[in-house]
Amino acid sequence: MKILVLNCGSSSIKYQLIDMSHEADLLAKGIVERIGMNCAELNHRAKNRDKFNMVKDIPDHQTGINLILEILVHPVQGVIKAKEEITAVGHRVAHGGENFKSSVRVNERVKQDIEKCCELAPLHNPANLKGILSIDEILPEVPQVAVFDTSFHQTMPKHAYLYGIPYEYYEKYNIRRYGFHGTSHKFVAQKACDILGKNWEELKIITCHLGNGASVAAIDKGKSVETSMGFTPIEGLMMGTRTGDLDIGVVLYLMEKENLSIQEVNNLFNKKSGVLGIYGISYDMRDIETAIEKEADPQATLAQDMYCHRVKKYVGAYAAVMDGVDLLIFTGGIGENDSGVREKVATGLTYLGIDFDTQKNHGMRGKDEILTRPGSAKTAMVITTNEELVIARDTLSIVTKNGLTD
Amino acid sequence: MKILVLNCGSSSIKYQLIDMSHEADLLAKGIVERIGMNCAELNHRAKNRDKFNMVKDIPDHQTGINLILEILVHPVQGVIKAKEEITAVGHRVAHGGENFKSSVRVNERVKQDIEKCCELAPLHNPANLKGILSIDEILPEVPQVAVFDTSFHQTMPKHAYLYGIPYEYYEKYNIRRYGFHGTSHKFVAQKACDILGKNWEELKIITCHLGNGASVAAIDKGKSVETSMGFTPIEGLMMGTRTGDLDIGVVLYLMEKENLSIQEVNNLFNKKSGVLGIYGISYDMRDIETAIEKEADPQATLAQDMYCHRVKKYVGAYAAVMDGVDLLIFTGGIGENDSGVREKVATGLTYLGIDFDTQKNHGMRGKDEILTRPGSAKTAMVITTNEELVIARDTLSIVTKNGLTD
Repeated sequence: MKILVLNCGSSSIKYQLIDMSHEADLLAKGIVERIGMNCAELNHRAKNRDKFNMVKDIPDHQTGINLILEILVHPVQGVIKAKEEITAVGHRVAHGGENFKSSVRVNERVKQDIEKCCELAPLHNPANLKGILSIDEILPEVPQVAVFDTSFHQTMPKHAYLYGIPYEYYEKYNIRRYGFHGTSHKFVAQKACDILGKNWEELKIITCHLGNGASVAAIDKGKSVETSMGFTPIEGLMMGTRTGDLDIGVVLYLMEKENLSIQEVNNLFNKKSGVLGIYGISYDMRDIETAIEKEADPQATLAQDMYCHRVKKYVGAYAAVMDGVDLLIFTGGIGENDSGVREKVATGLTYLGIDFDTQKNHGMRGKDEILTRPGSAKTAMVITTNEELVIARDTLSIVTKNGLTD
Repeated sequence: MKILVLNCGSSSIKYQLIDMSHEADLLAKGIVERIGMNCAELNHRAKNRDKFNMVKDIPDHQTGINLILEILVHPVQGVIKAKEEITAVGHRVAHGGENFKSSVRVNERVKQDIEKCCELAPLHNPANLKGILSIDEILPEVPQVAVFDTSFHQTMPKHAYLYGIPYEYYEKYNIRRYGFHGTSHKFVAQKACDILGKNWEELKIITCHLGNGASVAAIDKGKSVETSMGFTPIEGLMMGTRTGDLDIGVVLYLMEKENLSIQEVNNLFNKKSGVLGIYGISYDMRDIETAIEKEADPQATLAQDMYCHRVKKYVGAYAAVMDGVDLLIFTGGIGENDSGVREKVATGLTYLGIDFDTQKNHGMRGKDEILTRPGSAKTAMVITTNEELVIARDTLSIVTKNGLTD
């Protein structure tokens, strides 16, 4: 039961081959980058083997996926004997709109619906679809499953997902809060419950996925009821280069003052804002942490304070939405590794019953761990996320349940 | 000690004459509307007298203020014998930028600084300034005080008032969160403490000013530390016709799809959104309440649910900012009178120690009252606001302290 997980971007393909007979047995992983540009590059790592790198012209996604499959069956670099060993392919799909409330087996109608959502995720869905169509060509007998970044949040109530704009724009353009990082929010919430021996259908959970993109979700009895990313992934938390929440009056003011086009303003708030906009030198929270520790840099401190203040406000808001919180989870590159950020967010939440253990938290990186003191009424944890594993699990579950035909 | 309070809009002047020897002794109040248009109208009401109405051409603010003064000294409609009885004039000024951290006696420099802030409040500050200059002409000997909507929030920490955009825009254009309704937030917080016999410097208070415009403030030990309106009054809560918080990606998406200019999009999100945008028929929460009670109208219910959900999220966020809340206050036209809204916001906050008394709340309108059950760990209240009284108080205090000359 080997599942190939694909995450196709506009010029890249990330992949993992996971043997689900032994869950989480990662056989190989890698990335193809600069597709369509000169000298595309494949970086591949098989289990218990050295890294392998190859530079080659890769004009399109299908060529890229063909190359990945060649590497996977390669006598030296490979991990399987033949392509036929691949039971199914699971695709990360960015946007499922309102059509997809869970992962689905790919068929013609699903492909059409994913295409319809291209309007909502013009940078991602077309690439995701290219990945699916490439597998159609290369491995026509292998079932495919689409796992959506948005579907976990489809349980949000209407009063949470609608914006205060004329209702006709929801009807006409499907403008509403969708939320993203759904697979990660779901995965870490379930994993934390497994570790604690609790049933997530009995808990109020707030998950903070803090990576390059970042979002918070409120998960009430196993269902997402609120999340900070919205119609687009720019809303919500301040991120590495994205502004997050911003008075829309500022957008219009700056467009007028600086004579910016829609494209320019999009670029400004997506690429030059957030942590980078405040600190000025880097968008990487590791650089911020270093600048604070080594130089007590005031601008780095300000960027971190702003970042954490906003996470804390969302934690508070979602506690109000659920009338409290039982479990607060940090995940993602920053959530798993940046103890400074976790400390600023989770201290001063004693009113929620969170007795944060700053000593235990300090310097803790990349492992699943409880961060509250014994006896704390509520629990805070770090949980390492694994979106590929969720995709592999959903894929296996769907192709097993439904059989291998539609 | 009679204080004339003026609130000059672009085409209107609201006024009150308050005798501060007996605090809150309102001698007369009124409004001049449609200044500069044909047939301007003055509506005047003196203490213990019938309403008085007059239609007349009023080309500018100075003429309007002259008319107000004539009415105030009128043998029949008037309440004072001569203009000289007016001790001082207090002006509501919309925007004080970062220059004004409290109310100030007006002098040449203050006038220049108010003018500098016109850029930040182009609809309001020029009118406020016209009011001040008119009094300069008409009552040159009478001291004037400027009371700013923004100054109470000037205690916010930098990590709360900055946006996640390039820092240069703060330096170049003063783009930051300012917040508004400062006089109201301050007034109701202090009044509630007076009623409870508590010192506001020992409390964590969240004030919800819910009127046509609406904002929430976090007041920690007597200082505003966060507020929901930002650079402009469109940010934060959903309002009668304003969208409040909105994914900026939606703004850019709609501008592109509907080919909207900056002016059109400003108009859309300020005038056609919020409660009106969702309900479609009215922006008035009284109509919403009626439509829910009489017809169980689903769109009205949705609008109210969205409105309350957003208030609740801010209450939660600000509890997190202060590590809890001791006192939750509702004020403004909706906060004082709409028990349905208060109930949806304040129930389900048991995790904050708020044991909301829905029975006591039901139908309660326009009076100062505790809304939590006896024995509730924390307190929720309705407090009626009176921004004019704050202006009169600040005015008296400043002209008395500083004497009547600069």
